[in-house]
Amino acid sequence: MHYICCMLYITRRERFSAAHRLYREDWSQEQNEAVFGNCSNPNWHGHNYELFVTVKGDINPETGFVIDLKKMKQIIRAAVIDKLDHKNVNLDVDFMQNKKASTEVIAVEIFNVLRPLFIKENVLLHSVKLYETENNFVEYFGE
Amino acid sequence: MHYICCMLYITRRERFSAAHRLYREDWSQEQNEAVFGNCSNPNWHGHNYELFVTVKGDINPETGFVIDLKKMKQIIRAAVIDKLDHKNVNLDVDFMQNKKASTEVIAVEIFNVLRPLFIKENVLLHSVKLYETENNFVEYFGE
Amino acid sequence: MHYICCMLYITRRERFSAAHRLYREDWSQEQNEAVFGNCSNPNWHGHNYELFVTVKGDINPETGFVIDLKKMKQIIRAAVIDKLDHKNVNLDVDFMQNKKASTEVIAVEIFNVLRPLFIKENVLLHSVKLYETENNFVEYFGE
Amino acid sequence: MHYICCMLYITRRERFSAAHRLYREDWSQEQNEAVFGNCSNPNWHGHNYELFVTVKGDINPETGFVIDLKKMKQIIRAAVIDKLDHKNVNLDVDFMQNKKASTEVIAVEIFNVLRPLFIKENVLLHSVKLYETENNFVEYFGE
Amino acid sequence: MHYICCMLYITRRERFSAAHRLYREDWSQEQNEAVFGNCSNPNWHGHNYELFVTVKGDINPETGFVIDLKKMKQIIRAAVIDKLDHKNVNLDVDFMQNKKASTEVIAVEIFNVLRPLFIKENVLLHSVKLYETENNFVEYFGE
Amino acid sequence: MHYICCMLYITRRERFSAAHRLYREDWSQEQNEAVFGNCSNPNWHGHNYELFVTVKGDINPETGFVIDLKKMKQIIRAAVIDKLDHKNVNLDVDFMQNKKASTEVIAVEIFNVLRPLFIKENVLLHSVKLYETENNFVEYFGE
Repeated sequence: MHYICCMLYITRRERFSAAHRLYREDWSQEQNEAVFGNCSNPNWHGHNYELFVTVKGDINPETGFVIDLKKMKQIIRAAVIDKLDHKNVNLDVDFMQNKKASTEVIAVEIFNVLRPLFIKENVLLHSVKLYETENNFVEYFGE
Repeated sequence: MHYICCMLYITRRERFSAAHRLYREDWSQEQNEAVFGNCSNPNWHGHNYELFVTVKGDINPETGFVIDLKKMKQIIRAAVIDKLDHKNVNLDVDFMQNKKASTEVIAVEIFNVLRPLFIKENVLLHSVKLYETENNFVEYFGE
Repeated sequence: MHYICCMLYITRRERFSAAHRLYREDWSQEQNEAVFGNCSNPNWHGHNYELFVTVKGDINPETGFVIDLKKMKQIIRAAVIDKLDHKNVNLDVDFMQNKKASTEVIAVEIFNVLRPLFIKENVLLHSVKLYETENNFVEYFGE
Repeated sequence: MHYICCMLYITRRERFSAAHRLYREDWSQEQNEAVFGNCSNPNWHGHNYELFVTVKGDINPETGFVIDLKKMKQIIRAAVIDKLDHKNVNLDVDFMQNKKASTEVIAVEIFNVLRPLFIKENVLLHSVKLYETENNFVEYFGE
Repeated sequence: MHYICCMLYITRRERFSAAHRLYREDWSQEQNEAVFGNCSNPNWHGHNYELFVTVKGDINPETGFVIDLKKMKQIIRAAVIDKLDHKNVNLDVDFMQNKKASTEVIAVEIFNVLRPLFIKENVLLHSVKLYETENNFVEYFGE
Repeated sequence: MHYICCMLYITRRERFSAAHRLYREDWSQEQNEAVFGNCSNPNWHGHNYELFVTVKGDINPETGFVIDLKKMKQIIRAAVIDKLDHKNVNLDVDFMQNKKASTEVIAVEIFNVLRPLFIKENVLLHSVKLYETENNFVEYFGE
């Protein structure tokens, strides 16, 4: 049976626990609080982020896989989770230097880090979905 | 760092607990039961509805936000949740007058209520997803 | 292998969607609202209740079971779920007649209905846990 | 009120518990383990699969439904769940004969089974999403 | 109907997002890392904590309540959540001064803060359960 | 600050995906189906089991820990998860030899395996809770 036909979307969930803060250095603390509220606490706060990475590709007829999920997990952990988990998003993460630590920007930067790594595996990064809390999440499709 | 590039989708989850009933006044109770089953109970039943509202827009380079989530939450609560929570969908809700209280129709009406409110905030309402139970949900994209 | 030793607790989750209202007939609507808030809406509201029934007993060495879960499910559905699902707790439910439809009282009444039925199956009803929303639940142990 | 306008997506969640194994008969056990890891255990392993079936269609102005969810549930259970639940995906399932029991392939085959059945109900099968674990899922849109 | 008989346990879930760090000032960073691992990151990390507060008491026959859940929520929010949410557990929280910010200690301190407040409401604080992640939680019963 | 007072309960969640079958070799297939239903399928079926292991002990004033969660995780993974995950409970698991693969019995055997290992860590194994599906779980306290 050959699945020449079949484009599938594969999603892997990973999690990281990190501290962050929303603020602009060129603003006073008053301005930061006016815009960012308690998210600008100078002593930081943090979250258990949930990350959903989705790639798409054709089923490999030899294995029935689009991509080996063990490989997919390794890529995400090495390039993203190991850099963010138990870290400070603003201070500790190379790909977040000089960037705002909003959920939106973290999602975009994770997408930009992962896209070339999945191209090497012959699948296309489709989207990065990032939950900050159970009530709020963002999704980025590289557009 | 400017994100002129980046279209993101932001989702906010809200919940409301409401009573409702599926029926047509121009049908007998027998007809209503034949089509709507126990959902047509004349004494009502109810649900903990879960609502996921998704908007899309560009990242504001000044804040790192597409939209301030506090603002997004206020809009949804004032226009939708305060009208539905601890209410009877058929009897108490202005935007549901003379409409069927199916999950499909509630989702469409919530979409129609929210769309103009988000345009004022310079983001586009992308979708309204509404869970009636953990096993059933509908999604509407304004098409 | 004989498990003469082993007391186990078995829990079955069931769900029901129902309308209800908190109020006293001998109080004015103003008094009812003062005490019960929006839960006293005369037009009703409703919930997806989640029910966790726990029984305890020894493992039967012949089957490895404390109780057959299919039997446990049948008992709960026939005695509780079929009476509450898609119903009005205040108006439609025999074992709730003339009782307050608070989560506490519903849990106690479910316990009282189920206790004798499980004694016939040679297991002891240990507890009834009832979620009204994801944030609120009560548990009753028959004490 | 007529909803001539409104295309909605309706999703039903169903679950099945099944055994499976990833392997090729034309490979040695060593080759199978090298590619499929512990998923190729000759004694099988298993999962609680979660299936999300999404159909799309216009709201029927007579009922407020796109499709009666009871009907949708019956179709999925008869054609898919009854064949997979408490079964061995590799050995017991007619539509999986001679196919690899990867999550990707199961999702494609479920889609192919369901598509014609929903056409008869005047709705279009939009996607099949299949969770193997809480961390891994695939989605297929028939492309 | 009087429920003189009935002791019930009522649980309220609340959430807070906070930064923290595990370390001892009297230890070197090497010692801290040896014992606390990446939890001792000097730049902090954080979590979405989930808190379950359980009180017990008799049903009030006048209302059907053990305690008004709105009151219970207000008490927990004012005394606990407002102090922890979007804060640094080590630096910002009065009842955590000079204490280790482990999940165990946070749970004990929350219990000690809440116990006298619920006594005033004529219910007994039964337990505080605190989730640090979806995989780890602690529970304290005041013993 | 010394917590000489404080007995805490720490819970770690782990998961394993396994095949199993309920049957007695000394019964015919007809007898097995009459008692165990589709759980006796000779070709096996399987589950994503969720395991909650709870230990109790005093807070160590030096660390703020009852037990290092990394150590707790290692113990559970080495003694339980590595033996059950991606395995056949009836055929592959040393501590399940000649035992019925019911959720009850698996929970008891996991408890018996873990109890002595935690005694060495100076904490007491309090309970093993095992979910077979989202609707069914058992709990064993060693009684």
